[in-house]
This record gives sequence, structure tokens and C-alpha cells, in this order.
Amino acid sequence: MTVPSKTIALVGKFNAPGIAESMSELASFLDRAGNTVVVEAETAQYIELPGFQAMSVADIGKHANAAIVVGGDGTMLGIARQLAQYHIPLIGINQGRLGFITDIPLDRMIPVIAEMLEGKYVSERRSLLQAIVVREGHQIFSGLAFNDIVVSRGTGSGMVELSVEVDSHFMYNQRSDGLIVSTPTGSTAYSLSAGGPLLHPSLSGIVMVPIAPHALSNRPIVLPESSEIVIEIVAGRDISVNFDMQTFASLLRQDRIVVKRSNHTVTFLHPQDWNYYHTLREKLHWNEYPTVEGALN
Amino acid sequence: MTVPSKTIALVGKFNAPGIAESMSELASFLDRAGNTVVVEAETAQYIELPGFQAMSVADIGKHANAAIVVGGDGTMLGIARQLAQYHIPLIGINQGRLGFITDIPLDRMIPVIAEMLEGKYVSERRSLLQAIVVREGHQIFSGLAFNDIVVSRGTGSGMVELSVEVDSHFMYNQRSDGLIVSTPTGSTAYSLSAGGPLLHPSLSGIVMVPIAPHALSNRPIVLPESSEIVIEIVAGRDISVNFDMQTFASLLRQDRIVVKRSNHTVTFLHPQDWNYYHTLREKLHWNEYPTVEGALN
Amino acid sequence: MTVPSKTIALVGKFNAPGIAESMSELASFLDRAGNTVVVEAETAQYIELPGFQAMSVADIGKHANAAIVVGGDGTMLGIARQLAQYHIPLIGINQGRLGFITDIPLDRMIPVIAEMLEGKYVSERRSLLQAIVVREGHQIFSGLAFNDIVVSRGTGSGMVELSVEVDSHFMYNQRSDGLIVSTPTGSTAYSLSAGGPLLHPSLSGIVMVPIAPHALSNRPIVLPESSEIVIEIVAGRDISVNFDMQTFASLLRQDRIVVKRSNHTVTFLHPQDWNYYHTLREKLHWNEYPTVEGALN
Amino acid sequence: MTVPSKTIALVGKFNAPGIAESMSELASFLDRAGNTVVVEAETAQYIELPGFQAMSVADIGKHANAAIVVGGDGTMLGIARQLAQYHIPLIGINQGRLGFITDIPLDRMIPVIAEMLEGKYVSERRSLLQAIVVREGHQIFSGLAFNDIVVSRGTGSGMVELSVEVDSHFMYNQRSDGLIVSTPTGSTAYSLSAGGPLLHPSLSGIVMVPIAPHALSNRPIVLPESSEIVIEIVAGRDISVNFDMQTFASLLRQDRIVVKRSNHTVTFLHPQDWNYYHTLREKLHWNEYPTVEGALN
Repeated sequence: MTVPSKTIALVGKFNAPGIAESMSELASFLDRAGNTVVVEAETAQYIELPGFQAMSVADIGKHANAAIVVGGDGTMLGIARQLAQYHIPLIGINQGRLGFITDIPLDRMIPVIAEMLEGKYVSERRSLLQAIVVREGHQIFSGLAFNDIVVSRGTGSGMVELSVEVDSHFMYNQRSDGLIVSTPTGSTAYSLSAGGPLLHPSLSGIVMVPIAPHALSNRPIVLPESSEIVIEIVAGRDISVNFDMQTFASLLRQDRIVVKRSNHTVTFLHPQDWNYYHTLREKLHWNEYPTVEGALN
Repeated sequence: MTVPSKTIALVGKFNAPGIAESMSELASFLDRAGNTVVVEAETAQYIELPGFQAMSVADIGKHANAAIVVGGDGTMLGIARQLAQYHIPLIGINQGRLGFITDIPLDRMIPVIAEMLEGKYVSERRSLLQAIVVREGHQIFSGLAFNDIVVSRGTGSGMVELSVEVDSHFMYNQRSDGLIVSTPTGSTAYSLSAGGPLLHPSLSGIVMVPIAPHALSNRPIVLPESSEIVIEIVAGRDISVNFDMQTFASLLRQDRIVVKRSNHTVTFLHPQDWNYYHTLREKLHWNEYPTVEGALN
Repeated sequence: MTVPSKTIALVGKFNAPGIAESMSELASFLDRAGNTVVVEAETAQYIELPGFQAMSVADIGKHANAAIVVGGDGTMLGIARQLAQYHIPLIGINQGRLGFITDIPLDRMIPVIAEMLEGKYVSERRSLLQAIVVREGHQIFSGLAFNDIVVSRGTGSGMVELSVEVDSHFMYNQRSDGLIVSTPTGSTAYSLSAGGPLLHPSLSGIVMVPIAPHALSNRPIVLPESSEIVIEIVAGRDISVNFDMQTFASLLRQDRIVVKRSNHTVTFLHPQDWNYYHTLREKLHWNEYPTVEGALN
Repeated sequence: MTVPSKTIALVGKFNAPGIAESMSELASFLDRAGNTVVVEAETAQYIELPGFQAMSVADIGKHANAAIVVGGDGTMLGIARQLAQYHIPLIGINQGRLGFITDIPLDRMIPVIAEMLEGKYVSERRSLLQAIVVREGHQIFSGLAFNDIVVSRGTGSGMVELSVEVDSHFMYNQRSDGLIVSTPTGSTAYSLSAGGPLLHPSLSGIVMVPIAPHALSNRPIVLPESSEIVIEIVAGRDISVNFDMQTFASLLRQDRIVVKRSNHTVTFLHPQDWNYYHTLREKLHWNEYPTVEGALN
């Protein structure tokens, strides 16, 4: 049985040492396996892959059957936001330590991708958030986030005060360093550092996590994915809203950030033996006991 | 326009001072308004309400149109579990401070109930959990929980070790004081004290919160409501599983607790101006700033 | 018996509404009681207190027997740092809600101060921190902190990486939003919001609290007051060090912040019935139970 | 130069596999080096070390120059409490992973001990806590703790309510699963799991950590070592007080537990290159980044 030829786009963390060799090896393999290989245009500027065509993200979105990202979770976040509207599936190869969303180790890349080309993979959909910033009635910014949308204070200011509404109901006025609105995917990133819970990727939920809130009872809250969250800047200086901590807009008092689920989703393809809990255990050092065990001897 | 007559059951926290007067006043009002009033049998043993019939929980489930609980959230938890299979709606009147699920203050009981009898209410469905305990292949216990199912160690033992599977995938071995599996309703109770997030009542989710876990990265995790969670006792002494901290079973090593969403749900009726976030703000003292504010002057 | 006349300085949160009246009333009272009243120079620019002399902080430090601050904890922090080297005792009157360190309510100001003038007070010493910033071997900044010294990232950057040494021993490389080094006094302020413990004012300790650390086991640590802490900027952009969140310096990579206990201390005078735990209970809403109580009914 | 002969006691975790061989090797080495080796009496019952005398803990306390513990932190805790009154120094060899207080790895035991016998070691003093239980005016129990004294509820009860006084000042009424009073040594054990801060071993402090407190603002508090803490049982069933989670007493309502620093201290001898922060980094996986790093790529 022959597997039909596919167009596969390669995206790389182009400033990482050794990445060119890895991408070249991968491109050759895919080519020999009968696929059309294209290289994302910005990646192609930094990494020469002779014989393979460069292609814009938009064209990749329209023409490719899948995109393979070589780098880390950060590289994946960046390209996932750009490709979200095109719905092509993404595969992540991690250069360094296993990532949460780049889950194929570099040194096993070829055999794993070979199997996935034969259809042996697990497919999984992840939600995104979108937000617009409204100033004096006009939308002045919009963005997508795969991990999180973060409203936070600048360095020179003691706090930000935010007024939060959910589905047109007033929730609270919060004084803090800021507020994280996170997808399940983002729940293992900044949200976790700030004290948020893990959300299983298939949970239809959004978590709001205050950063160093003044009110000690301002705890993380998980909302249904259908919620519309409006965050208004009440007080503070030098405030910004960040999308996946990669793009951001500066904010003024009375600006309103309107956050809801994006209509787009991102599809990841994982190796067949991939398992969410396995990744959690590895990344979070579960099953190692940093404390107390002596006391139980 | 006339409102059709209903059968309304009264349930009381019978050992609370002053409860008899309140229930008597409520029963008379409902009676005068043309309803059939019955008194839950156990309540009736302690509180005399002359002229009103006592009725078993099962008969209330079959015959009543609604049950009104006078007491606190604990009283509501107890009766909600018993009535869950009958799907009759519940109304909560709180004797003391506003509760999370007993949200009508005693001193406004009559006018509020009067309005609700006219159809002015907000209806809301809450999920329940069920669990069975399996020992050597046999089910030895089963129970329902409206708040939470808690597996925990006894006093004389340093810890419990649990092995947790979700949907047949191994999650982790956890050493801790115990593990809380909580509904959104329970997320404001024990789960919150142990560091869990708030879950909006309409989120289709379950949260697992470790109690004093040895591994510092063993954080709360929110799972889809469809998850089946299996908790096996690996080590520890004097272990039990508690349902809403009201009923419990003693456990042995290798016992397995299988937790999933109950097929039953409970319907609460709230006054028309009821609002979830308002209750959170009141109960959690949001919008008061216990800390730091001085530093911002 | 007569109480000997004293020179008492008044300091006010001059932009607060109604403050002029309060300060005027206080000044008159102190004057009539036979004391020499002076007004801190910056306060005097905004608040007219006819008949009372304005005096610089330095002169207050040299000549006054005590300073009374009318405002909030923030006003107290600012003047306490400035007066630290002069060792004159401070009394705090709070305009609004009771503060942690401004513990005399405005509406009881006169009788309480009257008693304190007669020697009926509790005296208490608080430690301060000092830090210098070293860039390429040269000290470029120094400052005092009464609450905390905070190294933190700017808005546009995902994190700061810090290398921390204590008493010349390497402690860790930390990736986070920043690091708080706090006195016992500051342990009820920003440190608490970021997850730090309370430190009793008479504990000879310093607490380091990471802000949203990437490593989940990077927990607050309490060090002896004699510790010298060196924080080096390893990575990040737009980083600053803040003193009591009131003054700050911008930092570059490889800058080193050297933190230790100041040689100065600040003495507070409290009313005779003042009690640290009473203040904690009031400010932190202890003895109110925001959660779970229903479940225990 | 000759090192004077010493009497050295050996204590073992006698039920651990392989321990007999290790202890035998150690005993022979010490003997050949000219020391008098004795074996703690309970250890000697389980582990035969032919040619070496068994000795009671009391006699070890009176006659030995040092005790070497082979096992884990739990073994050390047990013997440290028993030997505390005799002030002989302790050395800890860890059978398994490095412990917090058993810091010599088994496979390097001989060369490390050899160096220490020559005087190349770091000496360090650790505080202990003592508590008495008072019932109706009479002391019914007393104990020492090297890690922590824990008052906690039993399995069948929803909570314990405790009234806490410090130095005769009322602190709070606390509803929770229990309360941990911990030394700096214990701050890496149960206290840490329950959310407490790390305390440097040379800090003169005691930390009180509530376990799953109902009031979300009931945070850990660090008190001066000189504090006297009185905990009274107000409500709850099946309550106990545990010492290092190794010995315990059952409690009734109105029992009072009086906790203060013990007059005894324990001296540990560490290898010369021992470093507290190194142990923390190893045990707590500092410098590994379980989260977020992908997002920063």
C-alpha cells in the first residue's frame, strides 16, 4: 500500500545552534519519502535548505497538509497563532528537553515521523483565545493566544487595579500585579507559575489567575469556554496586555480588553504512544518526592 | 391569575435554635398560599409543625414539586444527595450568614419565596459525583457526593500513598494527606481550603486537589466531567473515603475507588436577583483588601 | 506632675481630602498641651498650618522628640526611610481603615495621643534593609527599605533570570517575574500577596519570596537577619529594583544587588492596648470563615 | 600525628535491606582506625555485628563521643529526639537518596568518615521543640520534636477548631485539618507540603503552618524561637498531637498543648564540603525548570 504524497511545511527556531542540520536531515527524509517539502519563509531566510522552496505562512496555510515545527514550545506557540485560521495540523519536534507541545525528541525524529506519515498518530484539538482592546469605543488592537492573555503592570508601578466582568456580570475589582487568562494549553505555562491549576486539554474551560493579588481570597477561577470576559483598567501605570508573552499592546486607564474563545482551533498530531499524563509526569517531576520522605522511613 | 397549587416539602436543620419558629412561619405562609405542605420525616421527629404531614424522603421525591431547606449549606448537602435521584428542585434558606447554596436570608424568606412561587426564579443545574469502592474485585460501598469525595489518611499515620488513573491512563503515584475529587459546587468548600481553584457551576469539570502533597509540583488538575478516575490505595493506615465529609467508608490497601459523574443532577431555584459572582464576592471578601493597601497610599 | 515639653513633628499625606483639618486639630491639641509643634517641609507646602514652623526632614531628625504621621501605611513608609538614620520614634494615625503600621484611628486621635504623651505607650523596634547596586565594580545606587526590596521584570519581557547568593554561597538560578526580599514589616505587604509567610516583627529574619517562579519548588525562604544576599541579573529586559515600591533604579544584565540589614532601625510607638495579633486578625479577616462552614453544619 | 581514640555509636534503620553489610563495613573501619565501636541496643537486636558491644541509648548518651546513623532522615529523627538531652554529635549516612539531615552517601561513607575523624567537618546546631499536653490542669503527656509538632483531626471528622495563643496573646480561632508547629529542620518536611516557607537552619524561628485552613488568609507565620505557643482544642473529634509524625497522643476538647523551644539542641557533623543550599537544590530540583521554558524559547 502506498501513502499518498503530501505537502509538508517546515518551521524552525532559526537562531538555535545545530538546527540547520536537523532540518536538512528531516527535509531530505520527507522528500525521499515522496512528499513535497516547503520551508516557512522567515525560517528560510536564516536556514539554507537547498532544493526546497520557501513559502509564506499564508500559502502554507492554504496549500500544506501539515507543518512540522523544529524548536521548542515557544517556536510552536508563535507559528500556531499564525496558522490557526487555516486549520492545518501541527507536529512538534523538540530540540532540547521534551516540551509540553513539542513532544517528539530530536534524536528519534526520523522513525517517529515515518510512522506518523503512515497514519499512526493521535490527533488532538486545542482551543485558542482571542481578545480585542477597546479604547473610547473603538477597537484599537486584536490578537490571538494559544497559551494566555496577560494584563499586567509595568516595573515602575506598585499595582494595577482591574475591574472584571464575565458574561456581563460584575465579578470583582482586583488589585494585583496582573491577571492571566489562560487556555488549557497555557495552564502548564505562566498560569502554573502564578498558582493556577492544570487544565486537561480536552476540558472546555478557561482559567483566570491573578498574579500576586492583594486580596488573599482572590483565587484562580475556571470558567466555561463560552464565557466572555471583559477586563477594564481602573488604575495603574505602564500597563500592557500580552499574547503568549510574545506580542503585546500598551494600555491606558479605561481601556477594556474583551476576551473570548477564538473560532479557530489548532490540531496537533502526536506519536501514537503519546500520553498527556506521561508528559505531565516528566515535566513536573511527579513521582519524584522532593520532600518529607525521610520522615516516613 | 392564579398560581396552581403545589406540594412543597420542608427540610430543617432540626438541632438549630429558633428553627422551629422559622419553619412554622414558612409552613403557614405556604399553606395560606394554597400549597400542600409536607415535612421531611426526620425533621418532623424533632420539630413539631402541627397540622402538617410528615413524609419520607422517598415519598417527597415522588410527590413533591419542590423542597425548601432551612438551615445551612451542610443541611442542603445532606438532603440534596438523598433527593438527587428524584430530580425535584431545591430552594435554600440560610439561618445564619449567606451560604453558597442556601442563598435566601431567613429575614427575607417570606417575600422572596412568595415571588418564587409566582415563577420569578433562576433555575440552575448542578452535577454530582458517584463513587464505588472495589475490594478484591467486589463492590463493597457506593455513594453520591454533591461537594466532594475525599480519600485521606488517619491521624496515626504519616501519609497515604495513592495511585491514580484517569480514563485508564496512569496519572501518578501521590504521597500526601489525601486527595479531594470535587464538583464545581464543592470547589468553594474543602477543595478551596486545600488550594484548589474555583470552578464556575456551569463548567463541565471535576477538580482533583491533593492535600499537603509531598511532591511540590503535585498541583490541582481540572478534568472534563466525563472522566473516570480510579484511585488505588498503595500504602498508609487508617484510610477512609468521605462523601461530602458526611458519610464515609474505611479502606484497606489495594482498595480501588472508582469516581465518575453521577447520572443524577440537582436543580436549585434561586431568587431572580441571584448572581453567582455576588455570592463569591460576599463569601470570599473580595473587594476588601486585607493587605498591602497602605503601601499604595 | 507635669510632663516635660517635647518637640513633635507632623507629617501628612498631603493630597488626601480632609487631612488639613485633622492635622490642624492635632497641631492645636499638641500646642495647647505645651509641646513645640513643627511641620515637615513638604507637608507644609500643601497644608497650611498657620502658626507652626515648617522644618526639613534632616532638622526634624536632629531636633524632634517624635514624629506623628497622619495618612496611611504608605505615608509612613516614605517618612520612616528618610528618618531612619535619626532614630526618632514614629507614631502613625490612619485616616482610613486601620493600617499595619498606622494603628491609631483618626476619630480617636486626640485621647490616644494624650495618653501616649503621658508615657502610656508600647515601644517597638523594626529592622530595615539596605541595598546597593553594583555595575562593573562600581556602586551606582543605594537605598533603604522598610518593607521590601524587589527585583522584577518589565512589562515587555517574559521573565527575569536571577542568580542568588547568600553569604557567598550559591543558592539558585531563578526564572520568575522577580524576587522580593522583605523585612518582617514588609511580610504583610507585597510579600504576602506573592505567597510569602507572615514574620513576627520581633523575629530576626528576612524572607525571600519569588514572584511566579518557573520552578514550582522555588518556595519562600526565611534567612537570619545577618545574611548578605547578592542578586545578579542573568537575563531579562527592562528590569528594576524597587525600594518599598516607592523609589527604584533600572538595571542591566550582570548588575549585582547586594542586600543586607541596615544599621538603622525604626522605633514605633503604639497605644498601650496595641497588639500585633489583633491587627493581623482585623486586617486579614481572621476569625471570619469565608469557606466551607456550611459543610460543617 | 595520631588522632585520639573515640567511642562511636552506630544506629541503623534495622529493617532496611543491605543495612547489615553497610554497618559491618563501617564498624570494622572504625575499629581498625582505633576507635571503640558500640551498637545501639535496638539496632543490635536486629543486626548482628559480632565483636561489637550493644549499648542502651542512655549509655550511648553518657559515654559515646559521637553517633553515626545509617538509614534515612526518619531514622535520624527518631534517635536525635532520644539523644537530645545528652548533647552528643550526630553524623548521618543515607542509604538511599541524599537526605536533608543524612547527608553522606552510602557509597562514599568510608573516605568521608575517615576525613571527619581527622577533624575535617562542619558542626551545626539545630533546635528542638518540646510540648506538654494539659488536661483539666494536669500534664498528661510530654514530648520532644526535631521536625514538628502537629495537631490534627481524625478521618471521620470534617475539621478541628483550635484556639491559638502566643506569649499569652490570643492569635486566632482556626478551623482546619490541623496545625503544624515546625522547627527550621522540619521546614523541609510536612510543613513544606502544607505550604510553609523554608527556614534556614540558623534562623532562631518557629513556623506555624495551618493545614487546609477554612479562612483563606490563615497563612503560615514565623515566630521568634522564644515564643510560647498554646493550642487549645475547641471542637472536633478524634484529634491527636504528633511529634515528628513518629509518636503521638490522643486529645480531647479543652486539652491545651503548650509548645516551646526545648532547652536541648542537637549537633550535626557534616562533611567539610557540605552546604545547606546545595542540599536544597538537590532535594527540591531547583535549577531544573518544570514549567514555562518552552514559552521563553
